[in-house]
Amino acid sequence: MRDVAIIGVGQTAVGEHWDVSLRHLALQAVQAGMADAGVTRADALYVGNMLSGELAGQEHLGALIADFAGLRGIEAFKVEAACGSGAAALRMGYVTVAGGLADVVVVVGVEKMTDASSADATMALALAADGDYEAAQGVSFVAINALLMRRYMYEHGYSHQDFAAFAVNAHRNAQHNPHAMFHYPVTAEQFARAPMVCDPVNLLDSSPICDGAAVVVLAPAEVARTLSPAPVRIAASAVGTDTLAVHDRRDLLVLEGAIVSTHRAYKQAGIGPQDVDLFELHDAFSIMAALSLEAAGFATRGQGLRLALEGEIGIEGRVPVATMGGLKARGHPAGATGVYQAVEVVQQLRGLAGANQVPGARIGVAQNIGGSGATVVTHVLERMVDW
Amino acid sequence: MRDVAIIGVGQTAVGEHWDVSLRHLALQAVQAGMADAGVTRADALYVGNMLSGELAGQEHLGALIADFAGLRGIEAFKVEAACGSGAAALRMGYVTVAGGLADVVVVVGVEKMTDASSADATMALALAADGDYEAAQGVSFVAINALLMRRYMYEHGYSHQDFAAFAVNAHRNAQHNPHAMFHYPVTAEQFARAPMVCDPVNLLDSSPICDGAAVVVLAPAEVARTLSPAPVRIAASAVGTDTLAVHDRRDLLVLEGAIVSTHRAYKQAGIGPQDVDLFELHDAFSIMAALSLEAAGFATRGQGLRLALEGEIGIEGRVPVATMGGLKARGHPAGATGVYQAVEVVQQLRGLAGANQVPGARIGVAQNIGGSGATVVTHVLERMVDW
Repeated sequence: MRDVAIIGVGQTAVGEHWDVSLRHLALQAVQAGMADAGVTRADALYVGNMLSGELAGQEHLGALIADFAGLRGIEAFKVEAACGSGAAALRMGYVTVAGGLADVVVVVGVEKMTDASSADATMALALAADGDYEAAQGVSFVAINALLMRRYMYEHGYSHQDFAAFAVNAHRNAQHNPHAMFHYPVTAEQFARAPMVCDPVNLLDSSPICDGAAVVVLAPAEVARTLSPAPVRIAASAVGTDTLAVHDRRDLLVLEGAIVSTHRAYKQAGIGPQDVDLFELHDAFSIMAALSLEAAGFATRGQGLRLALEGEIGIEGRVPVATMGGLKARGHPAGATGVYQAVEVVQQLRGLAGANQVPGARIGVAQNIGGSGATVVTHVLERMVDW
Repeated sequence: MRDVAIIGVGQTAVGEHWDVSLRHLALQAVQAGMADAGVTRADALYVGNMLSGELAGQEHLGALIADFAGLRGIEAFKVEAACGSGAAALRMGYVTVAGGLADVVVVVGVEKMTDASSADATMALALAADGDYEAAQGVSFVAINALLMRRYMYEHGYSHQDFAAFAVNAHRNAQHNPHAMFHYPVTAEQFARAPMVCDPVNLLDSSPICDGAAVVVLAPAEVARTLSPAPVRIAASAVGTDTLAVHDRRDLLVLEGAIVSTHRAYKQAGIGPQDVDLFELHDAFSIMAALSLEAAGFATRGQGLRLALEGEIGIEGRVPVATMGGLKARGHPAGATGVYQAVEVVQQLRGLAGANQVPGARIGVAQNIGGSGATVVTHVLERMVDW
């Protein structure tokens, strides 16, 4: 097995791109990523996408994007794992390069959600949940998160207002990310007054429906230094899965898939949570941020929210999260998100995160979740050069 | 890179399974495949599926099926490449085992199409074509094949009736396949009277909309003999892509993606078309069968149909195709088809194809196509034991 590195990254701004088609959005990111990597060809292209069939009238994105990006003929597929699709595609790219079956692989995450109505998007997102046991019973995806949040508040004695810390942190960081969807700060007072979406989940607990595309370009680490001035090593790539339906879980408030995924990743990288300089977690809803901090070993059961309340999730904190805005404020173009997370960790490890730079960042973890924890893909990224 | 073998296969009957849900269909195939392989655990599960989001109200099949099959926790994703999804998932499984990232991988192809209306299924299948340049103009998937077929007849001087040879062959073979959808023969006379679907494509040129699930279990070839009495080596796994929209191709009647895919596969396996004992090709429409025979090197441009007319595609012919009924008569559950093809080649190489056995078969090729040739996945399978 070969060491694998990220030799280039690219991204479009996240937002409502009504004037850009899905293939153009993907193209912009692929061109940016390949230019950054300094490559003009690739052996394979994997696409992370969840909902192009439902919301954009197009399946078969692999060959489509490969052709549109001038890479006609190369191996190309779409990989889907609900909102974890982006990192699932990255995982497939990693496997292909690590195993020696390809040298240069382009991984593109792309999602176009805003051409559809909000109702259609909500219906489509429910496809991440269990169709028979959840969605068919009328439980939307936000409703599942609301049930988990309510249970967390009940078992651990938090108020809903305590969750404000996640939104405040994410929006503060997004102000300095030109690719983020929201460039304004929010206060705890605004959180308290935010419209309710699905009690207790309010608007500022929720990531937005949006469009975006992001790219990472992979190559064997041994040649990465000759291709890129600032490659980043993938020290670990790991997946854990769990039931789609949350009622089937042993403990509603424990993301076992995330525990398995993180444990496998830490083991492969030979690190523990104490070695992690930043953690790009999957804050699709603020309850997911709290549960992720616990599953990844940064806090014990019920104490993930405490970390946020104590200011430990900020850029200068013990576990910086959502350093470029996270799903909440950078935006959450479903199947693209996992690739955005990787791009942002690379920016941090290259020392190019500007006002949001985590000082001296050496090791960053990106964790992308499909469903309410049913697919969890974790990548540990490690700086290869000094800056 | 390690040699990879198929150590077990499983399949459900292809048909209209209105009483079985998608997850149960997948489960039946996974259980059959794992029992055949003699394994009770796996490191990863990849799902080939095209349309579960559109037609079965469920995305996120990887974690869902892994959990439902008793494999909760393992790595699991869905891989999509339109009707080439099944072989795309097999390709991902091959890459993972070949690269040494997993030892036992379950590849399941599953599709449930008949719970939806024919109109919805037709709309969904059009997602394999170019949404902007084909589907949005009102061109259905069968219409694209009709245009190609008309052009083939015009350029090469064939009559529509000449294509009957493909349907006759497929139905003859399906009679002896208990898992096939259609168990009756058809005659050239019946072909001549078949209802028109989209001129010149008639009902007997077309594969049916149906449900089904098939599984192959992969392991490193070096341990395959200890695990299975009759393993089959994957001598090559290769992908080629092309434009989705057929108008963008240099030559409408040349499947360049298939040429690239086959060439890569032959090169990896160190063989040529003369070494192939059977060719499970992608006869979604009879025109695709003709074009595939040409792209894979069994005939020159315009001569693929000639092979069929001369009786060379039968079990005893020079290039047996659709030996268990093919897409036409075994059935074409879109994203599952590529795995069915691999299962059938394994049956042939194990000498278990019964009345349809290709005498002394040593090398079989399975070729699965997404769209009208935009994704082409080719696997060369080779017998490892004598019988």
